[in-house]
Amino acid sequence: MSVNLREHIEKIVPLTDDEFAFVLSHFTSKKLKKHQFLIQEGDAVYHSWFVVSGLIKASHTDESDKEHILQFAMEDWWVSDYQAYHYKTPATLSLSCLEDTEVLCLSLENSEKLCSELQKAEHFFRRKANFGYVALQQRILSLLTTSAKERYEQMLKQYPSLFQRVPKTLLASYLGVTRETLSRLSS
Amino acid sequence: MSVNLREHIEKIVPLTDDEFAFVLSHFTSKKLKKHQFLIQEGDAVYHSWFVVSGLIKASHTDESDKEHILQFAMEDWWVSDYQAYHYKTPATLSLSCLEDTEVLCLSLENSEKLCSELQKAEHFFRRKANFGYVALQQRILSLLTTSAKERYEQMLKQYPSLFQRVPKTLLASYLGVTRETLSRLSS
Repeated sequence: MSVNLREHIEKIVPLTDDEFAFVLSHFTSKKLKKHQFLIQEGDAVYHSWFVVSGLIKASHTDESDKEHILQFAMEDWWVSDYQAYHYKTPATLSLSCLEDTEVLCLSLENSEKLCSELQKAEHFFRRKANFGYVALQQRILSLLTTSAKERYEQMLKQYPSLFQRVPKTLLASYLGVTRETLSRLSS
Repeated sequence: MSVNLREHIEKIVPLTDDEFAFVLSHFTSKKLKKHQFLIQEGDAVYHSWFVVSGLIKASHTDESDKEHILQFAMEDWWVSDYQAYHYKTPATLSLSCLEDTEVLCLSLENSEKLCSELQKAEHFFRRKANFGYVALQQRILSLLTTSAKERYEQMLKQYPSLFQRVPKTLLASYLGVTRETLSRLSS
């Protein structure tokens, strides 16, 4: 299990066995069943999660009860309601499991402690945040400039395995189209 | 001029005079006139820019020649085509000045050097990237869930000074509405 996290970190910065043991000591582990929630809208958010196995959906439900999907997160991805996590405000997202899921949990306090005690950790999280920022900039550009068809094709190319694992209704919601439009695109 | 940058950094981490001088030695300074470009689509992107004074527009022009505005950046904001900057790919954004503008320029090489030599710098940039990530997550949620009218009102509340400084046609493009719709919203 913890091998995943080590490989993931070492894509950015190499660690000694002792350093990795120190990093890992700042995490706790959690197993959830399909349909369980990590957080629900309105909750306090104490953790950021690294997905060891499984699949998580991050979504927001608007006033007319429509669900909008911000993100999916599968193996090796990080997920949280980062606004609620960093600013200690109530969650505006729900995170729920689309499969049985195992995560490693990092509290904000432990994250700050780890980063201040081990610069390699601070370096890793800075680079991850940089890459995450780029991915979101691309998502915004994609929402502004491309049609649903193009977004569908981009997603199929970038994350083929998501298409096997995510129900079509949820993919449609992520892409901002109706289930019927998605059927037309994917046929 | 450099006082701005120091105040900006010290909102996150305090610096001694020597440390700030060391930080500043990694930047160069640049002045641009209104209408000048920092980068154009297709360019290599060597810098991230901190805006000392002025106003910058970050936009992407699609195949049908329509301009989509990703971001405005004014005093104390950072801006770049971060995909091109971090991954060394050609720019997909143009950055141009809407006013006479002064920026501090930080190359990727100098940024990495600074962060490795001064952990306070690495800490600052990690926290900035965290907050930037949150802002983009909010922008995506706003694009997915709110109407143009709501986005207009959010923006007016969050960045009142932008409304004085940005031409209405560009505001409309940022909000993803026509100039006519914006006139109706703002009347």
